[in-house]
Amino acid sequence: MSDYKKVDTYLESKLDSSLDELKKFVAQPSVSAQNLGLKECAAMVADMLRARGFSATIYPTAGAPVVVAERKGKSDKTLLFYNHYDVQPPEPLELWESPPFAPEIRDGKMYGRGVSDDKGHLVARLHALDALLAEGELPCNVKFIVEGEEETASVNLVGFVQSHLDLLKADACVWEFGGVDHTDMPLQYLGLRGICYVELEVELLDTDVHSGLGGSIFPNAAWRLIWALNTLKGADERILIPGFYDNVQPPSARDRELMAALPDVEDEYKTRYGVPYFIKGLKGGNELKLEEVFSPTCTICGLTSGYQGPGSKTVLPKRASAKVDFRLIPNQDPQDILKKLRAHLDAHGFTDIKISDLGGDAPARTDPDHPFIKLVVDAARDVYEKPMALVPLVGGSGPSHPFVHDLGLPVATAGMGYPNARIHAPNENIRIDLYLKHAQHMARVLREFGK
Amino acid sequence: MSDYKKVDTYLESKLDSSLDELKKFVAQPSVSAQNLGLKECAAMVADMLRARGFSATIYPTAGAPVVVAERKGKSDKTLLFYNHYDVQPPEPLELWESPPFAPEIRDGKMYGRGVSDDKGHLVARLHALDALLAEGELPCNVKFIVEGEEETASVNLVGFVQSHLDLLKADACVWEFGGVDHTDMPLQYLGLRGICYVELEVELLDTDVHSGLGGSIFPNAAWRLIWALNTLKGADERILIPGFYDNVQPPSARDRELMAALPDVEDEYKTRYGVPYFIKGLKGGNELKLEEVFSPTCTICGLTSGYQGPGSKTVLPKRASAKVDFRLIPNQDPQDILKKLRAHLDAHGFTDIKISDLGGDAPARTDPDHPFIKLVVDAARDVYEKPMALVPLVGGSGPSHPFVHDLGLPVATAGMGYPNARIHAPNENIRIDLYLKHAQHMARVLREFGK
Repeated sequence: MSDYKKVDTYLESKLDSSLDELKKFVAQPSVSAQNLGLKECAAMVADMLRARGFSATIYPTAGAPVVVAERKGKSDKTLLFYNHYDVQPPEPLELWESPPFAPEIRDGKMYGRGVSDDKGHLVARLHALDALLAEGELPCNVKFIVEGEEETASVNLVGFVQSHLDLLKADACVWEFGGVDHTDMPLQYLGLRGICYVELEVELLDTDVHSGLGGSIFPNAAWRLIWALNTLKGADERILIPGFYDNVQPPSARDRELMAALPDVEDEYKTRYGVPYFIKGLKGGNELKLEEVFSPTCTICGLTSGYQGPGSKTVLPKRASAKVDFRLIPNQDPQDILKKLRAHLDAHGFTDIKISDLGGDAPARTDPDHPFIKLVVDAARDVYEKPMALVPLVGGSGPSHPFVHDLGLPVATAGMGYPNARIHAPNENIRIDLYLKHAQHMARVLREFGK
Repeated sequence: MSDYKKVDTYLESKLDSSLDELKKFVAQPSVSAQNLGLKECAAMVADMLRARGFSATIYPTAGAPVVVAERKGKSDKTLLFYNHYDVQPPEPLELWESPPFAPEIRDGKMYGRGVSDDKGHLVARLHALDALLAEGELPCNVKFIVEGEEETASVNLVGFVQSHLDLLKADACVWEFGGVDHTDMPLQYLGLRGICYVELEVELLDTDVHSGLGGSIFPNAAWRLIWALNTLKGADERILIPGFYDNVQPPSARDRELMAALPDVEDEYKTRYGVPYFIKGLKGGNELKLEEVFSPTCTICGLTSGYQGPGSKTVLPKRASAKVDFRLIPNQDPQDILKKLRAHLDAHGFTDIKISDLGGDAPARTDPDHPFIKLVVDAARDVYEKPMALVPLVGGSGPSHPFVHDLGLPVATAGMGYPNARIHAPNENIRIDLYLKHAQHMARVLREFGK
């Protein structure tokens, strides 16, 4: 590893002005779910990149614009950063200690909507670029793709990437997020599960009906939904859609070894979430950790029908619906799962259950032993003073599939996340020490990558 | 039938002042579900009865007070009226054409919350008493029991009746409601189904959890609820709780004959509610009518869990619940059904599903050939100029069991209801012609009963 004293001095001495830039960025609302401030925020991103000598273009999509920017560097190799400028809705507002779009620093943390997810990551990366530019040219070519619909399932991103393969051509990719665990150990997430999120809906009557009248003779949408859902998964947690498990790759010996090196989770889950027991007879240890990420799911995220207030109302509901997410394992495919779900419901006589596709991502993984991953991990050790743990797959999802499979890139994660960052919740925050560390880490990754 | 010219002249000439009294009564909000104005309304009821020479007492209960009143008459026989002074919540307010508690007459109808259910019935009965009192003493002893919790499942009424059997001793009872069908044919409802209304609830975590994290290893309350509900009723509509059907009395030959005399319902249900098909393979005719009322039900009235807004939220819900009503047939008993439900869930391993008892009524029927029913039917013919149809059992429920089984009374229905009365809905109304007819009918019933 080179000497980073000069870079680190720059990053520390200019930290406040970088945080000022972040504050301005967070102060621009950009809520994709509410179509609020997206164009303005995309323009801000392009300006911030142009200020660093990048050529930046704002591409319209069917939804929010995508910003793509590039600046040439010393080496021929190209590093691509994937970030997003949109944020989650700030509601419920009354639970924020300072206003979500008026960022504030308290006790070594900056609070604001999007400060961690994902605006802090983008600005810390710009800070790292500034430190390198202060010494001359960039060590490698750098590209950014910054989208505005990550919080609404990146519905236009996959198509955009697939139709701009030359524009986005690179040798490696750094993902939008990353972070440390509760012991401040940095984590390297090497894969994301896919997702297929659907709403199942059945509507059988023109109006809700008094249950004394229709209960014995009218079809009940809520019962139809219950019976349909019951065919999807048995009480033994086995998903019953024919062919659902066809393409699931079980964890390899290397995956098992990497998972075994991670801390146990059962006590934390019991304490943090009040989990009374684990399903499938799981007791803990590595089998629990493996099952958590290497098994696909069929999760009911929501149920809605009829009367939901206090006490009783004797109504036969005209409509019932369920939100269901399937988390997918390589090489399952969300479109294939959708087709199998439709066929399964039809085969069981549930042609009256409508399926709405609310978004999907295919699963994707990067080889834990890829040289670029080694580079990112080594660079982290120099900053965090703890070895970076390799996590072969995580439970969540994201649009990494076209980066891995269409652009053919190794995708590494790195970031300022930590367990109390409260992303998607009130009082979202970053730790400023981790903000600085992320900038230091990124400066090292860029320079080492250019060698 | 005696000559009712004088009575009818009185009822017609004093109709406006009776409607003024009804307006004042409706203008007093008395929403049991919201504990609004109940004591004030009970006092008003007692005053209205005292104004007719009744001794009236307001009895406190654990909930809303019960008003009991009595006035002696010429004959030794006693007729008991059951009414209620509470009303449904008026919401949604924006759908009312005139304010719910500012009653207004338009096009021969009076609009207001509770005007039909049940304040109009009580005031029309007082109007009938006034007409008889104008000619001297009452033809028979008259008692009233007027409760304030009918719209919240009459939770204190059964106990009140059972502990005041002497006070309420009578020879026959007129129920709070009744009415005509879409052809203006008056209907005599001779029985009410029972009801056992429960909330099933399961809560397994301290907080909702990201579905990417917990989906593979945490128990999911929504799935537990689905699997538990699925054990209650099969897709063939057969209720699977052991012993559920034990005490069900099938319709007698007389019941079948009476039901066959009623109009067919299939076309109306298809038009009015958009029913796409009837369950259990029912096609229409008398079998549909019989099934509608003579079969017990297990109706899901509501489902609630997790995320219910637009689009997707990837959450594993900590809690799930269902509102379920069982409509009961003589001689099923709600307490017995509750016990069987608990035992069934436990036997299937669903000890984690909590059952909340949200109210019950036992089913009760009056013999269609009882002399008092004949009297009420004969009196109706004189007023409505159409024969009153005998309906042996209706789909709805009410607290009639203690009147039939503890007080030993025949219970007749009579009233001003009609298909567009919109009870429990915005723009509840009565037709003033039916209001007058109900007063005329009640005057005849009182006088004929005293003979």
